[in-house]
Amino acid sequence: MKSKQSLGVVGKPVHRLDGIEKVTGAARYAADLSIEGAVEGKVLRSPYPHGIIRSVDAKEAEKLEGVLGVVTSSDFKNDDPYLGSTYKDQPVIAMDRVRYVGEPVSAVAAVDEATAEAALELIKVEYDVLPAVSNLDEAMFEGAPLIHEKIQKQGEFPNFCYREDLKKGDVEEGFRLADEIFEDTFEFPMIYHYAMEPHTVIARVESNGMTVWAATQDPFVLRADLASIFRLPLSNIRVVAPYIGGGYGSKTGIAVEPLAVALSRKIGRPVRIVQSIADSMVTSRRHAMRCWVKTGVKASGEITAREAKIYLDTGAYTETGPNTTSRATVRVLGPYRYPHFKVSACCVFTNTVPASSFRAVGGAQTVWASESQMDIIAAKLKIDPHEFRKKNMLARGESLYPGIKPMDANLRQGLRKVIKAVGKKRGRGERNRAIGIAVGVTNSGGSGASTAVVRLHQDGSLTVLVGTTEIGQGSRTVLCQIAAEELGVPLSSVSLIPSDTAFTSFDASTHSSRSTTVMGEAVQRATQDAKRQLIRFAAEMTKQKASRIKFADGLIECDGKRITVKEVLLSHFGSAGGEIIGRGYTGKKERPLFWEVGLGSAMVVVDPETGMVEIEKYITAADVGQAINPQLCEGQDEGAAMQGIGHTLSESLVYEDGQLLNPNLIDYKVPGFADLPTQFESLLIENHDGPGPFRSKGIGEGGILCVAPAVANAIATAHGVRIKTLPLTPERVWRALKDRKAASAETKKP
Amino acid sequence: MKSKQSLGVVGKPVHRLDGIEKVTGAARYAADLSIEGAVEGKVLRSPYPHGIIRSVDAKEAEKLEGVLGVVTSSDFKNDDPYLGSTYKDQPVIAMDRVRYVGEPVSAVAAVDEATAEAALELIKVEYDVLPAVSNLDEAMFEGAPLIHEKIQKQGEFPNFCYREDLKKGDVEEGFRLADEIFEDTFEFPMIYHYAMEPHTVIARVESNGMTVWAATQDPFVLRADLASIFRLPLSNIRVVAPYIGGGYGSKTGIAVEPLAVALSRKIGRPVRIVQSIADSMVTSRRHAMRCWVKTGVKASGEITAREAKIYLDTGAYTETGPNTTSRATVRVLGPYRYPHFKVSACCVFTNTVPASSFRAVGGAQTVWASESQMDIIAAKLKIDPHEFRKKNMLARGESLYPGIKPMDANLRQGLRKVIKAVGKKRGRGERNRAIGIAVGVTNSGGSGASTAVVRLHQDGSLTVLVGTTEIGQGSRTVLCQIAAEELGVPLSSVSLIPSDTAFTSFDASTHSSRSTTVMGEAVQRATQDAKRQLIRFAAEMTKQKASRIKFADGLIECDGKRITVKEVLLSHFGSAGGEIIGRGYTGKKERPLFWEVGLGSAMVVVDPETGMVEIEKYITAADVGQAINPQLCEGQDEGAAMQGIGHTLSESLVYEDGQLLNPNLIDYKVPGFADLPTQFESLLIENHDGPGPFRSKGIGEGGILCVAPAVANAIATAHGVRIKTLPLTPERVWRALKDRKAASAETKKP
Repeated sequence: MKSKQSLGVVGKPVHRLDGIEKVTGAARYAADLSIEGAVEGKVLRSPYPHGIIRSVDAKEAEKLEGVLGVVTSSDFKNDDPYLGSTYKDQPVIAMDRVRYVGEPVSAVAAVDEATAEAALELIKVEYDVLPAVSNLDEAMFEGAPLIHEKIQKQGEFPNFCYREDLKKGDVEEGFRLADEIFEDTFEFPMIYHYAMEPHTVIARVESNGMTVWAATQDPFVLRADLASIFRLPLSNIRVVAPYIGGGYGSKTGIAVEPLAVALSRKIGRPVRIVQSIADSMVTSRRHAMRCWVKTGVKASGEITAREAKIYLDTGAYTETGPNTTSRATVRVLGPYRYPHFKVSACCVFTNTVPASSFRAVGGAQTVWASESQMDIIAAKLKIDPHEFRKKNMLARGESLYPGIKPMDANLRQGLRKVIKAVGKKRGRGERNRAIGIAVGVTNSGGSGASTAVVRLHQDGSLTVLVGTTEIGQGSRTVLCQIAAEELGVPLSSVSLIPSDTAFTSFDASTHSSRSTTVMGEAVQRATQDAKRQLIRFAAEMTKQKASRIKFADGLIECDGKRITVKEVLLSHFGSAGGEIIGRGYTGKKERPLFWEVGLGSAMVVVDPETGMVEIEKYITAADVGQAINPQLCEGQDEGAAMQGIGHTLSESLVYEDGQLLNPNLIDYKVPGFADLPTQFESLLIENHDGPGPFRSKGIGEGGILCVAPAVANAIATAHGVRIKTLPLTPERVWRALKDRKAASAETKKP
Repeated sequence: MKSKQSLGVVGKPVHRLDGIEKVTGAARYAADLSIEGAVEGKVLRSPYPHGIIRSVDAKEAEKLEGVLGVVTSSDFKNDDPYLGSTYKDQPVIAMDRVRYVGEPVSAVAAVDEATAEAALELIKVEYDVLPAVSNLDEAMFEGAPLIHEKIQKQGEFPNFCYREDLKKGDVEEGFRLADEIFEDTFEFPMIYHYAMEPHTVIARVESNGMTVWAATQDPFVLRADLASIFRLPLSNIRVVAPYIGGGYGSKTGIAVEPLAVALSRKIGRPVRIVQSIADSMVTSRRHAMRCWVKTGVKASGEITAREAKIYLDTGAYTETGPNTTSRATVRVLGPYRYPHFKVSACCVFTNTVPASSFRAVGGAQTVWASESQMDIIAAKLKIDPHEFRKKNMLARGESLYPGIKPMDANLRQGLRKVIKAVGKKRGRGERNRAIGIAVGVTNSGGSGASTAVVRLHQDGSLTVLVGTTEIGQGSRTVLCQIAAEELGVPLSSVSLIPSDTAFTSFDASTHSSRSTTVMGEAVQRATQDAKRQLIRFAAEMTKQKASRIKFADGLIECDGKRITVKEVLLSHFGSAGGEIIGRGYTGKKERPLFWEVGLGSAMVVVDPETGMVEIEKYITAADVGQAINPQLCEGQDEGAAMQGIGHTLSESLVYEDGQLLNPNLIDYKVPGFADLPTQFESLLIENHDGPGPFRSKGIGEGGILCVAPAVANAIATAHGVRIKTLPLTPERVWRALKDRKAASAETKKP
């Protein structure tokens, strides 16, 4: 642990800079923007999970009064309308085939939403319906209908998409050394991100390019995709990301943006597409996962080997499947020491919505499996689950396998803290109540590439220009705090320019908890660069060596004399003045950037009559290195845990025969305020050991990892039932309790 | 003359990049912007030229349905509401006194323009009317009423504002050496700029600052003024300058922007003020000038001395008076050699609209005087006016006086060209037709401080960010041409971000013909900076010395191998890519930046019956060093000459008892298409000798200088009448012809 630095603005729970705008409703999200002349776009989606498109006839729709234009696949003839960072297999609009219910087939622009909706119904599409597969079992059986007949690589089974393997040592040898071997299969459902703001875009095609206002986490990725689809120079595409109403990964990929662009191009007016929640539910979702875990242990509790086979349901197109598959291979291991392991993970096509990134990609699903099994093992070995984990846990500096960045956090300390905070294990005489714990780590996979520009004005105020998007995480506030700290000025002297590819410089993305660490460093470097120039100009002015000049509290000090920024700039640039441009690049970095750590402990009570699970107390802890803004860190961590409560207790997108049965917020239950744990706390662990500015680390994903296993572990402790499928709905829990009772009664039979 | 460089994009008459947007009406000017929630503001102006405000009662106005708020001087209590770059003597709203008709006294925001107009009539203002002065004669006589009783410095005469003197040698000695001495007084009227777009602003006060969309030439000056008035950090004020419909100096100062801000602050909504032409006519105008010139010459034609006394009518507040006064002292000398000279110039307060900068400040007025007298002298000495000028003209490298930048142009060559182009002096048998010539130079007074940022994207396309405003002069096109040339890519690979103080870096101003020369250099440096970084990254990648790497045609060349920008950036930044930020500063520079040269020759015919002057042919020439875009240079030069035709033949703001009698385009006649010379040509002189990028010089002002003296000289040649007061209206010309006839008849009497 490094010593704590003396800090001014950093480390303070200052109010978020976008707070007033947001609570007063003044903050504008994409749908709130008033773009002159904009008309409404609506998307016609496939009603079939799988089929050949025989014809699309939009004549009647085009004739409807108020309809300005209809686009179909034929409008993309001169474009390159395919998406996919690994395989370019996803058309922006169905070409000759549909592969999931909800796939865009056509789009309409009209004077208002109602007209556009009415027009959709007049578009006649003829399909030859094909057999479909809704889940892993249907997709993988011998003879299953193939979703990508032509392009699909011959894999081990039908509808194979991608495979990744990871191993260390000889796993068979590891199992030979074990006293006990455990094999369990866990199921994680398909989850919807539920960002409060659905996917929204306004596109305006201009004489030599376009402006696109989009609810996107990654404006630079969207820009590159649009440039590729529409064959334009990057400099002619402006993507503006205003405030974003949550992302969680759902807004990292491209959605309906190209359709809005094609409509605008066709009709010569800006076109807005505001999706409904139902639309967004058929736009992106989390990978469902089946995870088989086999672990060998000594009777004393040392793990000797782990094997895992993971299957991810990636939906109808490749999208982020390979990346998620790859992350799952590492994340299923947890933060433990394995002499031998062998992991293989595959993603599989199904006729469902293509899966995208989702907070802690591949992590929530695999930690659910791994941490559940850790408690199964501890119970069998009769070792306290805390002790069992501690025994096998990676120490700081120890590597999960050769070549990967060593563990950079003190996990044991964190685990102690969450256990201490949750308190006594069980209330006296309260047999339905118990605590469960879990630990999860993710190898932060974010890119190291960010660029920041700062502008130091004559009055000493500073403008920070960054491509990072404000998706609710507080990036604007945190990045301003970093700049203010580095410059040594109050926060009120710093303003931030929101992400806009026309003005703000390149950023790889806003995901993988990378913004504070990577963009934060770019902002810090840009500020240092501006400061260095200022000092050089001051040296010129005072004819002193730069080393004798200091900058503090917004003033230049030289030989005890204090000079203002304005004086220096006037001296350098002349009487009209000027400003200093500071730039900061970050580039290639060791991966993971850091280990993101999530720790959780839950006190849970189950109503045996109804199977209803209540989380009375939930403690989540984030290892933040140095909190740039503790209040925002806690907000992020609590938000992640709350989202974890969703998939733990209630959330699941249900498909049957390729049809999504619950594409609405009535039938798909996200947690509300009533579902908050009665006691809910976030602990920040600050060991000043992060790679980011002021020794910070990225956070925001870890909190989602531990909820499900901690709750399931608590239920198992209280009731002796081990549920391996999420969500832990009352029915599922009640059935498990009933089955256990029956089994127990059976056992007691003479 | 330096040799011509081999150039790609520079030097080509490429179409202006904003052309399509402008001709299709898609281009948005401030009044066209649709800012959500914006309401209309109107300004109540003083009906009296001079008075004490006893009370302002807005109660009735506030009660009118649809009125959202009224501001008066009391709304600025916590602000610093005074303007003035030399003396801060101008309130943004009249405080306790009004000093000209049209001075803002109150402002109203209402749901629409009609309501706002109606509300203005309900505001009751009580004045104690004071005696006023409308012109130099009224202002300067002993005992004249004083406009600034308290703050006014005790000058040589009442209502003195500012004086500047310039001398060389001993002017009395010079006159002693002369064979002939000439003394003439010339009058130049008060002129309105007539930018097609009047002053317009939309202001939106936000939680911690403001956004102001304004028809301004100088967004950074406006930002600084707003920061000072409203006591805010520069970084919290965003000034957006969209397309500007002409400026000519009228949009360099602040106008109604603070009133829109104060209204927005008061009512909590964006407020738009769109001025009418009549409003703009009482917002800014050109300095009227009286110019007494005394010149001594040898019989052989060598000038021995010049003395000049100049009085500028600067209006009710100081504004740009001192700067214009200062420029007039140099510009009255013209490009001639004086063994001795002595110039004194004063500006004088009157109860009229404050004068602002106007194309070739202090130049059009003094060149009118000086070049008229040059022909008077030549006629008296019976030397050809061309020969007389040539004899006294500064050669390249010769200085007007010690310490000032030597003449950097070949004036003789230019003069030859315009004389040759205008052709024969007089048609056979056409006694009413003659040619006149004139030469004018201005010491370009622009600041040397500009900052540019360029962003080099992965696909090799480039975004240029500059604070220069597009006021019709073509700056966007020219600056993109400079960047494209420097980078060696086609113009289609370069985009420019319009001026917006939130994003684009500092620029001193868009005036004084400085943008191509100064901002152009900043853009060139920024592009070079980006290229250097790219080459450094390429050197890293290829493990070669940077000196062995070249960048041409958008590709990097190393040992005969060609590498794309993308490959280099991926190698440097990793797989997510990145971009390069190039920055370019320019700073203190020798003044003038260059000598701007205007040359003109006119073939004029006068109808002796009506006094109507027709310019049959006008040749204007601009010494451009290197035309970055010849088509745009010609457009600028022709536009300046056309504006000169306005003040030459018809334009004059007429005051009587402090009231402006012609504040509309019916009574104030700007030239239209029908007033175009039958033959109208612009010649570009390209000697590759400018200080700007690719040896360019600034242009755009020179064309206005010579029209009036060239036309008056032609009339004098044809009719023997010398008119010393502008404009040369039919009445004035007719009277002069009549007077001459009468005088001639008198002479012929026995």
